[in-house]
Amino acid sequence: MDEAYHPRAPAWEVEQWFNIDQAPTLGSLRGKVIVLEAFQMLCPGCVMHGLPQAGRVRQTFPSSKLAVIGLHTVFEHHAAMTPTSLQAFLHEYRITFPVGVDMPGGRDGLPRTMRAYGMQGTPTLILIDAKGRLRQHHFGQVADLALGAEIAELLIEAA
Amino acid sequence: MDEAYHPRAPAWEVEQWFNIDQAPTLGSLRGKVIVLEAFQMLCPGCVMHGLPQAGRVRQTFPSSKLAVIGLHTVFEHHAAMTPTSLQAFLHEYRITFPVGVDMPGGRDGLPRTMRAYGMQGTPTLILIDAKGRLRQHHFGQVADLALGAEIAELLIEAA
Amino acid sequence: MDEAYHPRAPAWEVEQWFNIDQAPTLGSLRGKVIVLEAFQMLCPGCVMHGLPQAGRVRQTFPSSKLAVIGLHTVFEHHAAMTPTSLQAFLHEYRITFPVGVDMPGGRDGLPRTMRAYGMQGTPTLILIDAKGRLRQHHFGQVADLALGAEIAELLIEAA
Amino acid sequence: MDEAYHPRAPAWEVEQWFNIDQAPTLGSLRGKVIVLEAFQMLCPGCVMHGLPQAGRVRQTFPSSKLAVIGLHTVFEHHAAMTPTSLQAFLHEYRITFPVGVDMPGGRDGLPRTMRAYGMQGTPTLILIDAKGRLRQHHFGQVADLALGAEIAELLIEAA
Repeated sequence: MDEAYHPRAPAWEVEQWFNIDQAPTLGSLRGKVIVLEAFQMLCPGCVMHGLPQAGRVRQTFPSSKLAVIGLHTVFEHHAAMTPTSLQAFLHEYRITFPVGVDMPGGRDGLPRTMRAYGMQGTPTLILIDAKGRLRQHHFGQVADLALGAEIAELLIEAA
Repeated sequence: MDEAYHPRAPAWEVEQWFNIDQAPTLGSLRGKVIVLEAFQMLCPGCVMHGLPQAGRVRQTFPSSKLAVIGLHTVFEHHAAMTPTSLQAFLHEYRITFPVGVDMPGGRDGLPRTMRAYGMQGTPTLILIDAKGRLRQHHFGQVADLALGAEIAELLIEAA
Repeated sequence: MDEAYHPRAPAWEVEQWFNIDQAPTLGSLRGKVIVLEAFQMLCPGCVMHGLPQAGRVRQTFPSSKLAVIGLHTVFEHHAAMTPTSLQAFLHEYRITFPVGVDMPGGRDGLPRTMRAYGMQGTPTLILIDAKGRLRQHHFGQVADLALGAEIAELLIEAA
Repeated sequence: MDEAYHPRAPAWEVEQWFNIDQAPTLGSLRGKVIVLEAFQMLCPGCVMHGLPQAGRVRQTFPSSKLAVIGLHTVFEHHAAMTPTSLQAFLHEYRITFPVGVDMPGGRDGLPRTMRAYGMQGTPTLILIDAKGRLRQHHFGQVADLALGAEIAELLIEAA
């Protein structure tokens, strides 16, 4: 089922982590499937769809086999979405999975991890397999049925 | 992933089929994963959740690998949910996958296939693997994420 | 606020009533505002929107000042939506306000009250003021905010 | 219908206005019914229910007779919900009615207008009649049907 070539997921460049003490890395999560949810706290599509879906993923699949990682990829309204504001947001929306603040980038305003993954906006959901390879890249909404199937495929591969 | 013993799915005893010319059977569908959606046309949980979910399953997975089969398991209000009423219901709700009318049963009012599968009510969603074995039995609501994962597991087994 | 001419609401021609012993009439309800919800039990827009809204109206405004009356206006699939089927439908969907079965009509298949009111389909929501006059005619969906305002206007007029 | 005594609405103490050039006041809006929507930009109940409802009110009733005014009543996470963050929030959520930033208060952290109105939290929806008097105070969710009726009553009084 996996004859195609899958590129390695770029490393995460994160300024600060919330909801976790030890910074997670692709290396430390090797062996687990990763759901990477890139969002901005003031993006309505993230608040209404992307983040609740990431929460459902967290509740549906076991932490021993799958990691859910949030990534705050601020590419607009930088002054409005500081880590201070993000911390309050995570508290108010009861988001308990680890969330990293994507490292501010250069002249184009795109943070570094967002640029490295070629993300086009938020929300973006990325699936990384247990070997650290990129497997799915969804910009915008993806339906739960399709996502559940994609996650299961990667979990079975890893087993 | 599949060391457990899984019983064979009981044959369907169907009085009449809608939306298909040739009556489908477990034998004729061997090689495909089957989603069997048991419902009653006047059951609100079926109308609001079960049948729309079956429709999403139909749209998400390819017909060449997965069959969606509806089963009208009338166990109450028999005079209100005749095949004539069902036909209008299927038309109005735009249900286009095959639907069989479960054969009326004996003294307890339960139709035969419903009794053979040990269903407790409607909606009930049954997953049958490509070898014709029972793999999941959901009475009431099942979330799309979990269902997508269960279907994917059976599709991968069958591949 | 009510200088315009408002025609009298046509009398209801009803074959059979459910959820009430004494047949309600425009005359017996004089002094109350009437919300008349015309529906078909196999019309998805009625099941998803019209009937739940009528239920919310019933719960929001006092019975002493406002009557909610359902009217089963079958104009298609007649054999599928008999009074027997309707009775089961009302039970399963927990509809407890009075519902009349519109009297079958002539050659065009439209029941008589539906034709007298000039209804174009289902769901149709009609507002009748405390003097028995037609005040609003909504075919399809009407939003709760607007409907709440229209009902309040008629209640205040009647006070 | 309005024999009861209704206290005058307290004046608004606002630090800064968005979406309007001239600061609105109770005096300048005299003659119009006012829907005052008090919210915090990081309050999920405000984002999911209160603010969309205020938007529906704005679209349903004419601006010539009814004003919708937002009030950002920050009583927690002050550093996370600054006017800079609020401005981005209003842009992203397409909120176009006037929004005032409630003036920071004293030791208890409650902003001044929030304290003057005796608000218990967010969202709070306040109805002020065309004479500038307090008529309804809803903390939490209020249904559209009931709100539509309350607004209509005040509009009719004012006519």
